[in-house]
Amino acid sequence: MTGHVDSGDFGLLSPQWAGSDVASATSDAAVLLAILDVEVALVEAWQGLGLAPENAAATVRSALDGAGIEGPGIDVSALAAQSRAGGNPIIPLVKRLREAVAKGDEKVATWVHRGATSQDVLDTALMLVAHRTLALIEADLEAVATSLAALAESHRSTLMVSRTLTQHGVPSTFGLKAAGWLDGVVAAAVRLREARAGLPVQWGGAGGTLASFAVIAGPGTGLRIADALADSLGLAPSTPWQTQRAPVTILGDALAQASGALGKIAVDVLASARPELGELGEPSEAGRGGSSAMPQKQNPVLSVLIHSSAQRAPGLAAELHRSAVAVDERPDGAWHSEWSALRELLRFVGGASELAAELAAGLVVHPEAMRRNLELSGPLVVGERLMIELAPLLGRERLQELVSAVVADPERDLFGLLRAEPALAELGEGRLAAMLDPAGYVGESDAIIDRVLARHAEFAAREGQ
Amino acid sequence: MTGHVDSGDFGLLSPQWAGSDVASATSDAAVLLAILDVEVALVEAWQGLGLAPENAAATVRSALDGAGIEGPGIDVSALAAQSRAGGNPIIPLVKRLREAVAKGDEKVATWVHRGATSQDVLDTALMLVAHRTLALIEADLEAVATSLAALAESHRSTLMVSRTLTQHGVPSTFGLKAAGWLDGVVAAAVRLREARAGLPVQWGGAGGTLASFAVIAGPGTGLRIADALADSLGLAPSTPWQTQRAPVTILGDALAQASGALGKIAVDVLASARPELGELGEPSEAGRGGSSAMPQKQNPVLSVLIHSSAQRAPGLAAELHRSAVAVDERPDGAWHSEWSALRELLRFVGGASELAAELAAGLVVHPEAMRRNLELSGPLVVGERLMIELAPLLGRERLQELVSAVVADPERDLFGLLRAEPALAELGEGRLAAMLDPAGYVGESDAIIDRVLARHAEFAAREGQ
Amino acid sequence: MTGHVDSGDFGLLSPQWAGSDVASATSDAAVLLAILDVEVALVEAWQGLGLAPENAAATVRSALDGAGIEGPGIDVSALAAQSRAGGNPIIPLVKRLREAVAKGDEKVATWVHRGATSQDVLDTALMLVAHRTLALIEADLEAVATSLAALAESHRSTLMVSRTLTQHGVPSTFGLKAAGWLDGVVAAAVRLREARAGLPVQWGGAGGTLASFAVIAGPGTGLRIADALADSLGLAPSTPWQTQRAPVTILGDALAQASGALGKIAVDVLASARPELGELGEPSEAGRGGSSAMPQKQNPVLSVLIHSSAQRAPGLAAELHRSAVAVDERPDGAWHSEWSALRELLRFVGGASELAAELAAGLVVHPEAMRRNLELSGPLVVGERLMIELAPLLGRERLQELVSAVVADPERDLFGLLRAEPALAELGEGRLAAMLDPAGYVGESDAIIDRVLARHAEFAAREGQ
Amino acid sequence: MTGHVDSGDFGLLSPQWAGSDVASATSDAAVLLAILDVEVALVEAWQGLGLAPENAAATVRSALDGAGIEGPGIDVSALAAQSRAGGNPIIPLVKRLREAVAKGDEKVATWVHRGATSQDVLDTALMLVAHRTLALIEADLEAVATSLAALAESHRSTLMVSRTLTQHGVPSTFGLKAAGWLDGVVAAAVRLREARAGLPVQWGGAGGTLASFAVIAGPGTGLRIADALADSLGLAPSTPWQTQRAPVTILGDALAQASGALGKIAVDVLASARPELGELGEPSEAGRGGSSAMPQKQNPVLSVLIHSSAQRAPGLAAELHRSAVAVDERPDGAWHSEWSALRELLRFVGGASELAAELAAGLVVHPEAMRRNLELSGPLVVGERLMIELAPLLGRERLQELVSAVVADPERDLFGLLRAEPALAELGEGRLAAMLDPAGYVGESDAIIDRVLARHAEFAAREGQ
Repeated sequence: MTGHVDSGDFGLLSPQWAGSDVASATSDAAVLLAILDVEVALVEAWQGLGLAPENAAATVRSALDGAGIEGPGIDVSALAAQSRAGGNPIIPLVKRLREAVAKGDEKVATWVHRGATSQDVLDTALMLVAHRTLALIEADLEAVATSLAALAESHRSTLMVSRTLTQHGVPSTFGLKAAGWLDGVVAAAVRLREARAGLPVQWGGAGGTLASFAVIAGPGTGLRIADALADSLGLAPSTPWQTQRAPVTILGDALAQASGALGKIAVDVLASARPELGELGEPSEAGRGGSSAMPQKQNPVLSVLIHSSAQRAPGLAAELHRSAVAVDERPDGAWHSEWSALRELLRFVGGASELAAELAAGLVVHPEAMRRNLELSGPLVVGERLMIELAPLLGRERLQELVSAVVADPERDLFGLLRAEPALAELGEGRLAAMLDPAGYVGESDAIIDRVLARHAEFAAREGQ
Repeated sequence: MTGHVDSGDFGLLSPQWAGSDVASATSDAAVLLAILDVEVALVEAWQGLGLAPENAAATVRSALDGAGIEGPGIDVSALAAQSRAGGNPIIPLVKRLREAVAKGDEKVATWVHRGATSQDVLDTALMLVAHRTLALIEADLEAVATSLAALAESHRSTLMVSRTLTQHGVPSTFGLKAAGWLDGVVAAAVRLREARAGLPVQWGGAGGTLASFAVIAGPGTGLRIADALADSLGLAPSTPWQTQRAPVTILGDALAQASGALGKIAVDVLASARPELGELGEPSEAGRGGSSAMPQKQNPVLSVLIHSSAQRAPGLAAELHRSAVAVDERPDGAWHSEWSALRELLRFVGGASELAAELAAGLVVHPEAMRRNLELSGPLVVGERLMIELAPLLGRERLQELVSAVVADPERDLFGLLRAEPALAELGEGRLAAMLDPAGYVGESDAIIDRVLARHAEFAAREGQ
Repeated sequence: MTGHVDSGDFGLLSPQWAGSDVASATSDAAVLLAILDVEVALVEAWQGLGLAPENAAATVRSALDGAGIEGPGIDVSALAAQSRAGGNPIIPLVKRLREAVAKGDEKVATWVHRGATSQDVLDTALMLVAHRTLALIEADLEAVATSLAALAESHRSTLMVSRTLTQHGVPSTFGLKAAGWLDGVVAAAVRLREARAGLPVQWGGAGGTLASFAVIAGPGTGLRIADALADSLGLAPSTPWQTQRAPVTILGDALAQASGALGKIAVDVLASARPELGELGEPSEAGRGGSSAMPQKQNPVLSVLIHSSAQRAPGLAAELHRSAVAVDERPDGAWHSEWSALRELLRFVGGASELAAELAAGLVVHPEAMRRNLELSGPLVVGERLMIELAPLLGRERLQELVSAVVADPERDLFGLLRAEPALAELGEGRLAAMLDPAGYVGESDAIIDRVLARHAEFAAREGQ
Repeated sequence: MTGHVDSGDFGLLSPQWAGSDVASATSDAAVLLAILDVEVALVEAWQGLGLAPENAAATVRSALDGAGIEGPGIDVSALAAQSRAGGNPIIPLVKRLREAVAKGDEKVATWVHRGATSQDVLDTALMLVAHRTLALIEADLEAVATSLAALAESHRSTLMVSRTLTQHGVPSTFGLKAAGWLDGVVAAAVRLREARAGLPVQWGGAGGTLASFAVIAGPGTGLRIADALADSLGLAPSTPWQTQRAPVTILGDALAQASGALGKIAVDVLASARPELGELGEPSEAGRGGSSAMPQKQNPVLSVLIHSSAQRAPGLAAELHRSAVAVDERPDGAWHSEWSALRELLRFVGGASELAAELAAGLVVHPEAMRRNLELSGPLVVGERLMIELAPLLGRERLQELVSAVVADPERDLFGLLRAEPALAELGEGRLAAMLDPAGYVGESDAIIDRVLARHAEFAAREGQ
């Protein structure tokens, strides 16, 4: 296959996925190959029904090789341009395919695209592209999950401050944060797996009635062929869904969820990587994160790109929902809006997954910075605990007064102030000090981590099945 | 409860849901009641753990009645305005609630909102609102499905033309079209059921560690309380998901899918209700569909409103995905963007479901118009069949020539032209006439309808479980 | 007017605008008043043409007062519910209005809504609502701009670090940052002013031909009435735009731009307000920014709410563009999707503007924290300058080597290292120290500030015109 | 330049723009050329200031030719893949460019990218790409407008029915419909022109302070270079707008408006092209609009593709507004989200414009079908007029009764019924017949057409200026 560079998009404006496996798996060339896979599978199905000659599929395959349809002979950009006339690429491609096959065997040529309509082939081919791409994405998500599970386990005792509305909340651990990320990634991976398993063949003929197949080979032929295609292409069997687009929106929603789960990690890393926080760093690699102007810069490029993917994904998934409002038996625009939106969505999420696998595997954790930042808030970080345990002894107002004094002047020593309160005299210095220790106020972090790790383990165990 | 009409939205600009049950189930008052339900359930949970006094929940409930918090005494719009200061309505509400309870029983008052954070209460309350609203939506979707199943069954033989890219395709039946709609609605209803069953309690305390609960009553208390809340509120148990928003996006995606399934019906009805087509009509009801200017107008208002709901839903669902990219342990804006988007999404989909139930129940089908329109295309409507069956006898070019002649001049008689072809002489007039009969070319419509009806029956059977 | 609280939205889930002036200016009650203003203006126009009786408009006005249409007598929520039947609120309202007027003067009643169609009245009323709301927003934006101009001026010498991809860039000043914000706000305010000046009357009659008016009072009457309405309502004159929705999208785009300009300020404040940065703080006010769980919290609530408004606005503006693809002379759903999206957009942007005025007026700047953070990067912050000035003397590689050494170990003293380089011996200690001084490397900040301040001054000068 | 077909997108899934001039003008290769144009212009600017050697720009240009940077030697897809490391393509490109220049002249090489930052170059290059693409789009829109103006003029008397909410409204003319389209296209073209004239150079240096330039060549150099670049590249001068993205959103909004104006035409054509309406047809061309299954199909492919472009555009424009919420001096993801969204938006709108020029030039109008459809509604189509003119004579109720009788049974003769009413006896048969003639009830269509044509003429006159 060839393509004209002067009309091509190779990802120059999309560092989110440029050069990734997913870019290749969703390229025009990959779509074209999937279309040809569907066309060959259809000939095979006819052959399987004893109608097309025994050598039919083999003949088509060798025509593909010989006539260069899969080889350098076909010009993808020319084909794309031709697709404007009919509004889809199947029409010019089938013409070319039939001609190529007819050169070798005219009879076999009549079985090419036999009974099918453009939408059947294109919808099914895009499901195939999605199926192949999801396999890549899931592998990356599993790698991300494995890395995060290790972080959650090993950082159970790494204290850090929780942050709400940008401000310091109560103490927490980095293990719990990693477990939260893991929870999101596992949930997304589960949903993607389900989505992949459900990706169906779309087969309805010109108007969704499968009438052509019945005329060619008797009642029931259409559904039988649809089942055969599902079987040989590894897709789920289905009744026609030409204008019932749930298969596409379910796929898009799962991708958007994955994007959000990864985006959440990215924004946390980006906040933590600010030099003033310095809690997390990206894995360094020669040449990455540099600046064209500033020699000292090390930009968290992985997270920046994951974040920007996550900004784009929801809008693309929404386009798929819009396309589901599809009038008639093939809509007057909605279907055509779907193709590029779906591909772009696969690319953004796939690119982000690949980057996230690298990020999670090499994430640099700075426990000392986490501790330093936690201590910025001093004893106020356990303010909630004091309110619970000391307000009953001291009165709510008095306690708030002391806390406010320290908020106003962080130099003031809350421990000392509390020690001086007669109402707390009985409490004992050790008890009070323990109460002020952030490490003693991380609640049920471990139990939550355990539950999340268990969900991951269960997920990972199902993987090989 | 009261509210200031001069700041209120009662649906004047939203006929999609104005006055519907869903509008009430998602109103500010309903949200407030759900918040109070959560607060009461929390006191109950503390009571269940033997910590709050035995009469605690009852005391809170009677304070609610007595002090008018649920009654006319609370001004929702004032509360809304107060929520600006802290960025959420829980803070001013809890203050007021505590005061009301303290009047009766100071000790019980200390157990109000005990250990909780605003987000726990608001997230859980919104899940509760969603749960209640989804019950309404599902009932409507089930009614829609029942009506559509009847249409699919009774119109198996009602011929109509399939339409692709606005043009006539091959013959089909209205039963098949109704089955397609049914398929979409059942798939959406299944997903909504799953989503409803999975709506979880959100309970994590100030920073997602549940630390306050452990301090109040020992390790494990936080998760125990979360489970107790789930149980008493009818929600699913869960670890904290303060910044892991999959529960919200899964809900939103299911709603968007429902919206698309209903929107698909609406656009088909709208196209068919054009006077020139006249194939479908909306149920008439005194006063509906009138125009302020034109006395003869009967507008398909139900479909217009369902269609416009379907336009809005994907954008709102996308906002939920955007909010899933939530930094820290409570994000700096994303969470606050979620609330109104979720509510609006529930309203649009709920309003559309109610309207669709009415539309599907009373849809007026005009088989004679369907037939008349089908015949507009004359024998060309079986052009595909002719290509399959006659091209082998007549040659592809000659057949295309005859077809093109009729396309160019619809007055020409294709049957006569074909009869005059020597190559078709053997075929016999009866065989040729049968071939040109659209009723003989509806393919596997019945088998597809059967499969869809079976899916609906299976769905309906699970309903009561 | 009254409304049922149990279906009302008073902003409980929208702290972004709850309780704001814009909420009132866009409430159902405000929309209703605008509709009535249009209806009265129409009667006035007929009167002005000498057709309606001389007392007509006065009679309608007194009927409004007497019959309680503007008073407590009209139930907005009931009207909203009634609007479902016809798909818009004008139909039931006009019926009621005619009845109220007819009680006083039957003849005048015949001039109510005379010749008009629902869309004319509703479109024009919404333009009126937008006009009134934009006045509020512009006033807030002007206040924001004034505050920012003062900050830009007074902080010309307040050093801070610029940040790119979260990392420290080169030195800059807070004055320049404030000037950047100002630039965005002024550009947005200019565009909103233009948008407001262009908000047109929409007047086309039932099908956009103005035919009814010609029949009532001769050719040209329709356009004359449209012009009269524009004049009395303070809107721009226009030919009908029933399905040419540029007036709505231009409005929406201007609002989205304003939202972005404010959102940009908010995210900068949010980043700077992290305790580890501590460069900027929100104005404190009793009760604001508190937490229901943590007594020490001071959340940057203004910025959080502005940020979340900015997240919602683009999606709403996009809905308006979608509604512009409006089939026929009144579309089958797109128009109905527009109303609530436009109102919500006005609310989010209006709420954000009000909050931003407060934020900008009271923004707390911590120059010492800015300085401290800048110094975190040590001399590396002028790395770019060193590359420009020293690379020619020292060689690019050697310089990068020294810089990398300091990146790897921030304890190392770059000044000392450079002093020790023979190739730099001639440079002199003073020159080298000056080169390493961040204050000496803020470039053309002042000139840029000057240009922005000049644009603001020009804008402010045009204000009163 | 070369690119790997296996990762490329040539439009196979985007028939909306595949093979169009806009596809080439926005391809990766075109972006690369624009980047190189900016880099050359920068060297030129340095040369203009007397700093870079006199032959500098010429040397760079010949290095570009000689070293194959613009020729076949540079692999765009490899460059795209390399851009992942730093998050943008400028870094690897500049490295390569410097090396190529250094081979010829080491000194000149030091002036390549001198003082600049990646964002300066990429932002400015994208403005350049937009500028070039908008010229194509505007030419197409002007062609569309010219065709529509001719239709509006020549079809002033072509009667058709207006349609509201899919139903017949009052009589209108096709000339008025075409004028409406024209109005939208002219408004969009005006805005695009303004947007193009305002596309600014973006030049701020590493942190938006232009500090590097001042160090290299004294105060004021940065702004002088920015002005020189604007001048030589044909862009507007500007202060830095690295995180003030109004230039991008203004561009995107104008594109979205154009998309809506064209989409409006497309949906009207699509509705009218339904065989049952048959009022409008697309220009036929060999091979266009065919079906892979049905030999008789002539699909309105131009409108389908324009419609689907219009579905995608608003979401992409919204992404640009989202990217305007840009933290710091270069945001942590928002900027990276912008590039591909902007390019895709240019492509969809550009592709649609090209298709629309073809559609408008060749639109086939069927006045007889318009008349036939209008007559479907019989005299009811002037129901509004009857209400105005006859209700005063006959009473509102009685008239509605007669109208309803005809609505219920279209066979009934409204003229006869009215003639039989004693209250109308005086009216005279001729007067009544005239009243029922749809041609007599098209109101101020001509005056509206005149106003729109005048706006178009004014626009066209400004064109050459």
